[in-house]
Amino acid sequence: MLYFQCDYAQGCHPNILKALEETNMLSTSGYGEDPYCESAKAKIRDYINCPEADIYFLVGGTQTNQTVIDSMLQNFDGVVAAATGHVAVHEAGAIEYSGHKVITLPGHAGKIHADELKQMLADHYADGSCEHMVNPGMVYISYPTEYGTLYSKEEIEAIYSLCNEYEIPLFIDGARLAYGLAAADDITMADMAKLCDVFYIGGTKVGALFGEAVVFTKNNTPKHMITQIKQHGALLAKGRLLGIQFAELFTDDLYMSMGRNGVKWADSIREDLKAKGYTLYMENPTNQIFVVMDNAKLEQLKENVVYDFWEKYDEEHTVIRIATSWGTTKEDVEALKKIL
Amino acid sequence: MLYFQCDYAQGCHPNILKALEETNMLSTSGYGEDPYCESAKAKIRDYINCPEADIYFLVGGTQTNQTVIDSMLQNFDGVVAAATGHVAVHEAGAIEYSGHKVITLPGHAGKIHADELKQMLADHYADGSCEHMVNPGMVYISYPTEYGTLYSKEEIEAIYSLCNEYEIPLFIDGARLAYGLAAADDITMADMAKLCDVFYIGGTKVGALFGEAVVFTKNNTPKHMITQIKQHGALLAKGRLLGIQFAELFTDDLYMSMGRNGVKWADSIREDLKAKGYTLYMENPTNQIFVVMDNAKLEQLKENVVYDFWEKYDEEHTVIRIATSWGTTKEDVEALKKIL
Amino acid sequence: MLYFQCDYAQGCHPNILKALEETNMLSTSGYGEDPYCESAKAKIRDYINCPEADIYFLVGGTQTNQTVIDSMLQNFDGVVAAATGHVAVHEAGAIEYSGHKVITLPGHAGKIHADELKQMLADHYADGSCEHMVNPGMVYISYPTEYGTLYSKEEIEAIYSLCNEYEIPLFIDGARLAYGLAAADDITMADMAKLCDVFYIGGTKVGALFGEAVVFTKNNTPKHMITQIKQHGALLAKGRLLGIQFAELFTDDLYMSMGRNGVKWADSIREDLKAKGYTLYMENPTNQIFVVMDNAKLEQLKENVVYDFWEKYDEEHTVIRIATSWGTTKEDVEALKKIL
Amino acid sequence: MLYFQCDYAQGCHPNILKALEETNMLSTSGYGEDPYCESAKAKIRDYINCPEADIYFLVGGTQTNQTVIDSMLQNFDGVVAAATGHVAVHEAGAIEYSGHKVITLPGHAGKIHADELKQMLADHYADGSCEHMVNPGMVYISYPTEYGTLYSKEEIEAIYSLCNEYEIPLFIDGARLAYGLAAADDITMADMAKLCDVFYIGGTKVGALFGEAVVFTKNNTPKHMITQIKQHGALLAKGRLLGIQFAELFTDDLYMSMGRNGVKWADSIREDLKAKGYTLYMENPTNQIFVVMDNAKLEQLKENVVYDFWEKYDEEHTVIRIATSWGTTKEDVEALKKIL
Repeated sequence: MLYFQCDYAQGCHPNILKALEETNMLSTSGYGEDPYCESAKAKIRDYINCPEADIYFLVGGTQTNQTVIDSMLQNFDGVVAAATGHVAVHEAGAIEYSGHKVITLPGHAGKIHADELKQMLADHYADGSCEHMVNPGMVYISYPTEYGTLYSKEEIEAIYSLCNEYEIPLFIDGARLAYGLAAADDITMADMAKLCDVFYIGGTKVGALFGEAVVFTKNNTPKHMITQIKQHGALLAKGRLLGIQFAELFTDDLYMSMGRNGVKWADSIREDLKAKGYTLYMENPTNQIFVVMDNAKLEQLKENVVYDFWEKYDEEHTVIRIATSWGTTKEDVEALKKIL
Repeated sequence: MLYFQCDYAQGCHPNILKALEETNMLSTSGYGEDPYCESAKAKIRDYINCPEADIYFLVGGTQTNQTVIDSMLQNFDGVVAAATGHVAVHEAGAIEYSGHKVITLPGHAGKIHADELKQMLADHYADGSCEHMVNPGMVYISYPTEYGTLYSKEEIEAIYSLCNEYEIPLFIDGARLAYGLAAADDITMADMAKLCDVFYIGGTKVGALFGEAVVFTKNNTPKHMITQIKQHGALLAKGRLLGIQFAELFTDDLYMSMGRNGVKWADSIREDLKAKGYTLYMENPTNQIFVVMDNAKLEQLKENVVYDFWEKYDEEHTVIRIATSWGTTKEDVEALKKIL
Repeated sequence: MLYFQCDYAQGCHPNILKALEETNMLSTSGYGEDPYCESAKAKIRDYINCPEADIYFLVGGTQTNQTVIDSMLQNFDGVVAAATGHVAVHEAGAIEYSGHKVITLPGHAGKIHADELKQMLADHYADGSCEHMVNPGMVYISYPTEYGTLYSKEEIEAIYSLCNEYEIPLFIDGARLAYGLAAADDITMADMAKLCDVFYIGGTKVGALFGEAVVFTKNNTPKHMITQIKQHGALLAKGRLLGIQFAELFTDDLYMSMGRNGVKWADSIREDLKAKGYTLYMENPTNQIFVVMDNAKLEQLKENVVYDFWEKYDEEHTVIRIATSWGTTKEDVEALKKIL
Repeated sequence: MLYFQCDYAQGCHPNILKALEETNMLSTSGYGEDPYCESAKAKIRDYINCPEADIYFLVGGTQTNQTVIDSMLQNFDGVVAAATGHVAVHEAGAIEYSGHKVITLPGHAGKIHADELKQMLADHYADGSCEHMVNPGMVYISYPTEYGTLYSKEEIEAIYSLCNEYEIPLFIDGARLAYGLAAADDITMADMAKLCDVFYIGGTKVGALFGEAVVFTKNNTPKHMITQIKQHGALLAKGRLLGIQFAELFTDDLYMSMGRNGVKWADSIREDLKAKGYTLYMENPTNQIFVVMDNAKLEQLKENVVYDFWEKYDEEHTVIRIATSWGTTKEDVEALKKIL
């Protein structure tokens, strides 16, 4: 079976497993107070060229979004996101569970538009009854988006400029950050650190067993952050497991090289699909491919390939998602092309 | 340096790491819908002789306590626990964060007494203003307790009998379950499954990298449990990592044998301490040793041993905790004895 | 100054004040356990021909929506509402504060459409990842809506039928119920009690000093309801004040006659506006009038009339709201017409 | 029947009802933006000699405690209170519902001791694992306490001094403030404003129909306070009802004179009880009397007097509470004495 369903179907990059083995029987303090976490943080600070960055390692994406958003917002605040954003749709209400409304803007291929954000903020404060409404207290965007699309540097700048004008933080969800940056030619992780208040570097979907590195870039860490992480059930006892993994990810360009692997093979599959006359449902340059398939063809595909059902297109067609990853090989891709 | 600070200072049992390696590059579905989780669940059901058990794997203890308690309680319910219970003291308010009061009973060497529970429940419902008070909606006990002590089977039966009388669930926190059962001679994990409504089998402190297995034993899983786990940020994307680990823990008696290792060496150290005239602060039969140390002696110990400061005893003495674990070796223990 | 800004600008109907005076120095038990509350409940049960109705009196609308929704939902549930619904927009995030997402459907002149609800519910359960999404656990509609429009009996039946099919409760927010029922010719309060699981009879906007009567109509009161009300800070110490008021409202048809007064004068003003060539922004038959005004005219109006700014229409026009109420008099209306 | 069960059994002082009548048909803006609220705030500021005081009117006590505590705390904070404090015991978990732990200190006749508070705070920050614990983020005391006792000015100063040292606010619950200040000879409301960060002036139990005035005394109002009040379901639509009531309470010394009335008759009853040989269960100088009654005597009392059952004393005796109030008359007291 060829596996193209998602980018978290395999374990982790062998280097990471090797590092876990080598350190396995050593004893360290828990909860992230260990030299591996320190080392990983130093490497990330260095990589993003942001010595003042304050970094926390959490286990998974929903947990990270919930903890970051809840710790940065006050009671009366909501978080602004695309209607298609992960926090708005696919996190089982984890944000509302923590007491905050997700205030939605239209998603344009997964992205919010700065002009619509501007209008919304202006309208909110112009409304005489805004005291009876949820305060827009943060902007959340994902990079890449849930549709694999990317904001241009200019688009992020426009959004961040609005955030600064209204004095609300910009939070970038980088669950698939490596795939985004690998596909972009206008922005680096160091740029990103400048263009937001907090972002996270996704490990789970980019070759770690698990783990997301939250980076506060503006001396703006919420108070008692460890307590807040613990309170959200998100403080890993053997915190060093996160440090060891991120130290590997940020050694010898491993993180970005895994991102490039995913993008390279996605590009290759996209090219092949187009050559064969398939219709792409949504164009994007990263590791997710949304393609319209004839239902009959799909029945055949199903026998050899695990893909992700996305949505019904019409009576005879279906949109599926094919995801490459850090672990995708030339052999996988060639086999897939044969079947397509 | 000799490391006796806690039981989660090392990575994991080599068998577990081996299993993670062997499965590393295989692709499976996420979120626990994989054959490893199925296999681990089957092994646990078999081990506890409870075919109807419904099992969920979570990552850590606070997360597990928060998710289990919140999913089983209704809005108006609180959870009854010892004043010294982990949920009452050391979880950063994670239970209250989810909206529920921790109603405390006195801790007697970490344990609640059935007669005090009985009185509290009777008083609550006898109080004319009980509608203005938090409803006792669950009883939480830890086995072993935070002080390493154990409830006898009879004590658990007495508590469970009250729970049944008042129709409220009994939840047993088994973060260190293996060390408890290894030290007990009156109760097995299968007995425990019968004597409560839900318990968890701690992996983090017993040789897993991480992971806790929540077992609902009475066809009483809260509705939409996966959604509730997700909502609490506690659903691991690569869920199979938990399945692989628990499948190993329940193969060839590994879980209990690791528990026995911890207890054996704790017993050995306790015997040595007594022989040398040290005062134990709190007697218990499991893997944690609470001992009163002369401060001068402590300064010397500090040079070679990592222990856990527990509390000040008097001006010249301090209570420290020495914890053995699944990974403690004969060499460690002998070296420690020499220093003591 | 003529006051047409809202329907809660005056105190209360004189009968209510008289009843408060007559009972003022009597002593009764608190928290709603008094004969006035009993009497008011009996009158309401009788009026809606629903002997099994279970009734609770709360102080205000947001409080009532928050308490009813939170007490009827489970953790994993959200409430479905029109995007323009009060709970979605104008309650400062009170629903999300209690942990629940407001799942929005398009508002059509304030109303949700049964076919769109049907599609949403079907899509939700058809979605393979619905376990990662908020469960639609209740449907909320307002009668009249925030735009003064009314669902027909048939429309409510269609929505309720879907609710029954999916086994989720239908909650009708009747903050302005009297104005709705007074304008409708196809439905009575007794019908409404049959066509939902819970609704509330708004007092604050219909001649009470304050107060909303929540009616559970299907033997479906959430457990420990008094405790839940208290927990939400919504249990009035001198509960009898609510009983006294609702007993008056349901004596000699006072509640509905106040509703008819508001509607009669709104009709009269609407007729006048149309005759004078004004454009109504949104047609509706109840006590709120949304009219497009020339900005120059508005400047003039402002000198004599207090109205509610609704929204900018275009550069030269503005939408305003004129609200009549239980207290509107012929003199007010004639004076307003002269100015218009 | 003689009514001595509580101090909120009657309606309101006739002056208040008169003011409600006189203003009844006037129209004003809602939500507290009216001249009556402005006037009441000015009178209170003047009375407490605190021109910078920022004042909000809420409806009831639990609501006020929940809203004040939750708006002043951050996620990771709990509130320190006596184990017998209202927020710890009799508010149905409203504080925990808003996400915050009530951290209890021993209650000494309802009061916390500064030295125990000092020890608790010192211990907390000295504990190496304090990041895993709830942060003490506010101190809550009630004046008078739930047992009718009073802190001396010196005791409050000692507590407030600790609060300032640890930079956490002191919140004084003044549900029965008038009865406390009327009985005290060492402190005025103006002193109190200086000796805390926020307090509330209880109306519900001192002659208002309902209402509590929250006073932030140190330019320390939480941000977006109206939004936070709304979010807690605590913003009264016809806010002027609160303004009208508090304006009356602070006219011609009405508030304090009602407090003095309650205390005068309580003193008189206490004197009588002592003269007749009854045992007071708890000495206090305010409007609540806790007395030990022979059960046989109690049966007889029950026929003519409504009192509050407090607790069982022994097999033959019961502790009851007799509460006087703003509305207690000489006739009531003389009739009671005859029966006693």
